[in-house]
Amino acid sequence: MDKQLLIDCHERIKPFVHNTPVLTSSQINTFVGAELYFKCENFQKMGAFKMRGAANAILQLSQAQKENGVVTHSSGNFAQALSLAAKNLGVKAYIVMPNSAPQVKKDAVRGYGGIVLECEPTLEARERESKRIQDEFGATFIHPSNDDQVILGQGTACMELLAFHPDLNYVVTPVGGGGLIAGTALAAHYFGKDCKTIGGEPMEVDDAYRSMISGKIETNTSINTIADGLKTQLGDRNFPIILKYVDEIIRVSEEEIVAAMRLIWERLKIVCEPSSAVALAAIIRDKEKFKNRKVGIIISGGNVDLSRLPF
Amino acid sequence: MDKQLLIDCHERIKPFVHNTPVLTSSQINTFVGAELYFKCENFQKMGAFKMRGAANAILQLSQAQKENGVVTHSSGNFAQALSLAAKNLGVKAYIVMPNSAPQVKKDAVRGYGGIVLECEPTLEARERESKRIQDEFGATFIHPSNDDQVILGQGTACMELLAFHPDLNYVVTPVGGGGLIAGTALAAHYFGKDCKTIGGEPMEVDDAYRSMISGKIETNTSINTIADGLKTQLGDRNFPIILKYVDEIIRVSEEEIVAAMRLIWERLKIVCEPSSAVALAAIIRDKEKFKNRKVGIIISGGNVDLSRLPF
Repeated sequence: MDKQLLIDCHERIKPFVHNTPVLTSSQINTFVGAELYFKCENFQKMGAFKMRGAANAILQLSQAQKENGVVTHSSGNFAQALSLAAKNLGVKAYIVMPNSAPQVKKDAVRGYGGIVLECEPTLEARERESKRIQDEFGATFIHPSNDDQVILGQGTACMELLAFHPDLNYVVTPVGGGGLIAGTALAAHYFGKDCKTIGGEPMEVDDAYRSMISGKIETNTSINTIADGLKTQLGDRNFPIILKYVDEIIRVSEEEIVAAMRLIWERLKIVCEPSSAVALAAIIRDKEKFKNRKVGIIISGGNVDLSRLPF
Repeated sequence: MDKQLLIDCHERIKPFVHNTPVLTSSQINTFVGAELYFKCENFQKMGAFKMRGAANAILQLSQAQKENGVVTHSSGNFAQALSLAAKNLGVKAYIVMPNSAPQVKKDAVRGYGGIVLECEPTLEARERESKRIQDEFGATFIHPSNDDQVILGQGTACMELLAFHPDLNYVVTPVGGGGLIAGTALAAHYFGKDCKTIGGEPMEVDDAYRSMISGKIETNTSINTIADGLKTQLGDRNFPIILKYVDEIIRVSEEEIVAAMRLIWERLKIVCEPSSAVALAAIIRDKEKFKNRKVGIIISGGNVDLSRLPF
């Protein structure tokens, strides 16, 4: 995917997303020993960067496709993002969710106008139900992370960050399904000045770390992490980009994630998800690497259940 | 105090404070039925608007006064603000705190370079200790809210808000010691276009509400509110300004404060103090008044103990 695709994508989605603010904290900078620039996608529409990829994917559909709607399976931010992006564009969004998903997540999707379809909580059931919707309604399936248009959309957050801070040495993102880090790596490659992309990943779900070593997509046998946005695995569209353009993946413990999350809440005064804190946790774990460098961080989202905080 | 005093004050403190961002939420707007503009002083240096007044008060001292340092009694944000503003200007700050104040607050003051002096937790002991510091070191006493230079400094947040949104119909602030609302009311009067200033106050400490009715400074017999920044009472410098320029004070319950705080955290994705939520709670309580109007809200600060949240 070339530079022009990112530029076009950014122009395309501009009316539907926020150019989110970039925050800094002199206290965090002193603590880390580096200059950190937090790109606050928790302030994005519906509260996460996923809005960018969802909007781009829908905008790239033909008129006929738009008329038949879109479908995805997700119980996370992408479900809400696709619902809202679809609503804003007058498109139907079918969201396949496991019947075990929390009521609050189903309500959130419905609140953004998505049509929730419940299924058994297995990958097979989810895929079968998605297939049914595609067959029955002619809806277009949009994967939350393994889709070229979604990857490009997610990359626009880093483009905006580099537009304000062109001389970043690093940009760090959390790694889940791989859409954000792949798009970010493309943006850093095309718009940065020797800006390296680094991933932060929970040790408990270190499939991307292992995939980078083995050269093939690895899976997780358990998914025991507080960073619930990062339990998914890489895909065949984003993994080649990650292999080519991502410099390193740094793994962090659950304790490091919670400590970084607390630091962000206390010092930046913003509400972010545990997944977002993984990027800062990675920088803190590998302080020497980032010492005196300028580092961008994508704060991926802010949708947390305030009744269940880890503090 | 005239318009030029505010303009001069803003120029004076500019190098020492942030021009904090203004956030909006379409979901909160829909819920309230008005256009709300949140001036985020939780992103201010040291996490609260108090930095503005503290910086202005110190900057107005003579060179001789600066050499002898400043003193205040506070266990809240003003203690930290005066410490940091003093440090930035190479001035000593003596902070008289009750020995019952939480360790974390004493540590925060010391972290900003303030000299903590503990005393018995009575008003008399605090005033005696402050007096001793004034006598012994020649330090200048700076009151957290009842001081012309502090009032002017606090008013600069509203000036900045009106510079971006000149046609606000209302600006709403929490009411505690009266410094913020008095400064805001002056700024709204001089820089707004018929912009009315409204205060939000917890029912549990409604001294300002009662003072507006009686025309004299009332006190609270109990201070049982989660909005711990609002337990203080008005003073002879700010009360005449409040009487003249504040339109109304709306009282809210503790439940309304917590609900508004939760709304701010969940929708704006920012960390704010319970005191800050009082302003939004007041608007929600009196929705009809604000219907379809443009309303500025000063989010006063973001220094909360994450281990003791009301959610």
